[in-house]
Amino acid sequence: MTRDEACALDGDDSLAQQRSAFALPDGVIYLDGNSLGPLSHAARDRVQEVVAQQWGEQLIQSWNVHHWIDLPLRVGEKIAALIGAAPGQTLCCDSTSVNLFKVLSCALHLQAGRSVILTEAQNFPADLYIAEGLGRFANGCEVRTVSADALEASLDTDVAVLLLTHVNFKSAAMHDMARLTRLAHEHGALVVWDLAHSAGAMPLELDEWQVDFAVGCGYKYLNGGPGAPAFLYAATRHHAGIRQPLTGWMGHSNPFAFAPDYTPASGVQQFLCGTPAILSMAALDAALDQFAGLDLQAVRTKSVCLTQLFLDLKESHQELSALRLVSPREAEQRGSHLAFAHADAYAICQALIAAGVIVDFRAPDILRLGFTPLTLRYAEVYDAVEILLEIVRSARYQAPEFARRARVT
Amino acid sequence: MTRDEACALDGDDSLAQQRSAFALPDGVIYLDGNSLGPLSHAARDRVQEVVAQQWGEQLIQSWNVHHWIDLPLRVGEKIAALIGAAPGQTLCCDSTSVNLFKVLSCALHLQAGRSVILTEAQNFPADLYIAEGLGRFANGCEVRTVSADALEASLDTDVAVLLLTHVNFKSAAMHDMARLTRLAHEHGALVVWDLAHSAGAMPLELDEWQVDFAVGCGYKYLNGGPGAPAFLYAATRHHAGIRQPLTGWMGHSNPFAFAPDYTPASGVQQFLCGTPAILSMAALDAALDQFAGLDLQAVRTKSVCLTQLFLDLKESHQELSALRLVSPREAEQRGSHLAFAHADAYAICQALIAAGVIVDFRAPDILRLGFTPLTLRYAEVYDAVEILLEIVRSARYQAPEFARRARVT
Repeated sequence: MTRDEACALDGDDSLAQQRSAFALPDGVIYLDGNSLGPLSHAARDRVQEVVAQQWGEQLIQSWNVHHWIDLPLRVGEKIAALIGAAPGQTLCCDSTSVNLFKVLSCALHLQAGRSVILTEAQNFPADLYIAEGLGRFANGCEVRTVSADALEASLDTDVAVLLLTHVNFKSAAMHDMARLTRLAHEHGALVVWDLAHSAGAMPLELDEWQVDFAVGCGYKYLNGGPGAPAFLYAATRHHAGIRQPLTGWMGHSNPFAFAPDYTPASGVQQFLCGTPAILSMAALDAALDQFAGLDLQAVRTKSVCLTQLFLDLKESHQELSALRLVSPREAEQRGSHLAFAHADAYAICQALIAAGVIVDFRAPDILRLGFTPLTLRYAEVYDAVEILLEIVRSARYQAPEFARRARVT
Repeated sequence: MTRDEACALDGDDSLAQQRSAFALPDGVIYLDGNSLGPLSHAARDRVQEVVAQQWGEQLIQSWNVHHWIDLPLRVGEKIAALIGAAPGQTLCCDSTSVNLFKVLSCALHLQAGRSVILTEAQNFPADLYIAEGLGRFANGCEVRTVSADALEASLDTDVAVLLLTHVNFKSAAMHDMARLTRLAHEHGALVVWDLAHSAGAMPLELDEWQVDFAVGCGYKYLNGGPGAPAFLYAATRHHAGIRQPLTGWMGHSNPFAFAPDYTPASGVQQFLCGTPAILSMAALDAALDQFAGLDLQAVRTKSVCLTQLFLDLKESHQELSALRLVSPREAEQRGSHLAFAHADAYAICQALIAAGVIVDFRAPDILRLGFTPLTLRYAEVYDAVEILLEIVRSARYQAPEFARRARVT
């Protein structure tokens, strides 16, 4: 593969024109859209309009005039279209952690007589923390963490909920969501899936796979901006049994009646809690329009091609062999990023950033590279490998300025 | 009082120049800053910078370069300065409802052996809903609601927490926070105060008054924008005992270590949960700078003068007597808004809005007018009364276009 051949792939790429919708800076190869998706022109313009016109000029009236009040449902439905959810099951609100707390509480309530939250030891730590916090709080609830390959054997009659992240934040290892959901159901367990590293990067079919609950993140592949509100999904068949402790006024059947007692709204809306962060949610709302009419299978295909191209190029250079692949080798078993272990991963990460290749470090020794199909070019993947090669070949990453600081964030 | 005399008050107003910091539209008298504070130029410029430069150009690196990661603490300290809190006790995060859930959970945990949350039947319904949701969730917890005048007598040895809103959202009736906190402590109860309708409108002395916990809102008198993140306060003496169920990764002692187990950060930081909504929080951060160097006693004095001027002018017109004051008549017993009951409050509210006087309706029959000292002029108060008088005198509010719709939001 030459650079010209990579450029030819860009020429044939049906998604190539998507890039022009984003405000990526010149001279940067952005391999971190899986941490923070880039700014779209639409999101930039929308935020400016919401601030200057809607807030600045129309003030409180914008709650009605510009339908701020419906934003959690409206944005939820845009996300629903990306995860295979029929209308009325998806909301945009709060953070992933808060939403996970809500749906886990609800799932436990639905599973009276069972008390175990089964999850993977390598699950995203934030999800483990929330399960742990809920477990301490909910009487008799136990959080059981096992290795990925022990999950199936651990599905016993005590398991109330199987809590998993679809694509691992570090390794990119991807679970078979359909299969594990079916297995969990066969053992009488409900499932809660975290879609943080898959929503927007591939087709998902939550309804078809009979998923019970899901949560996910607005600021990764959905490009909603830093700390964008998160989402949650609750299958219609569970709506009659929704009971969760964060009974905020936005989940009331008639919030503006200001009745003293809490009467839940019908349906998924019961999971709403406080007043939504409109500026942040408006950015996500606008960013999601970029997905309208996109074929998510084409997005996934490009994602696989990009990661595979990086892997093939990387492996064609013997000098890069010290970077050990920790992601699954088979493309269909991984998400849209790649992880490599290296004792000097931190320094290599810093040297890459200094050279304009924005990547991520994950403690203790992981170099993580994200491949976002809407913005990334094949030629950039080629260039990134060349830059990495130069950094490793020259041992430039060993320069003092790239050494690890005491506090890594 | 003539209009010229009102203008003379503006001429003598030491806060008059604050108005120029805000982007209020021409031809509008905004009496709803207690629902949604107006846009400041600083907030508008900051959001634009955060979106276009920090997110757009520097992408993921802004978490460190622009210290997004510290925003909840930094904004928290700016709010601390307004509520009489020494550093290290105040955070900006999540919504008021989610924060109330956290501090109530923590207070209940600290009060082992006591199980009652005592609150006022007329408390803000959203706070009652959260207490109710937590009560159902936490084994054996009872939420006891009594009328305001029965609060003191209800402080018995079962009461774990006294939960109150400082200034009532509807009537503007203000509790004596120092006195009720002292009384609660004498009965072995902790206090949780909701400062939604007082923070930024008057001096508060949480440390001096020995308050245990507090929450409040970023989008009212703090002018943080629609759905701005909320805040919470936890007195230092309780930090060692913090235990709350929303154990998100931002409250971990080392979030970026991605350790599998939750080890709480020290201090108030343990109340952090998920990733903060940076765009919304940045607007609040910039808006708070408007308070730097302001004398909150002067703010309170102007607030009292504005509300009193409205009340005096209103009561000088016999034609307005059908609007019955439901706020306390004594200025020191009320916050920075006024509430009047009227059978046609909804229609009068709509007619006022149509005439450029933005006010609020609260079901079933309350006309609510907010007086925000940083932006409101005495002459506007004068004009608002004149417009109200004209609307009532002409019975113009009875026009069909002002009739109540089925769904009021």
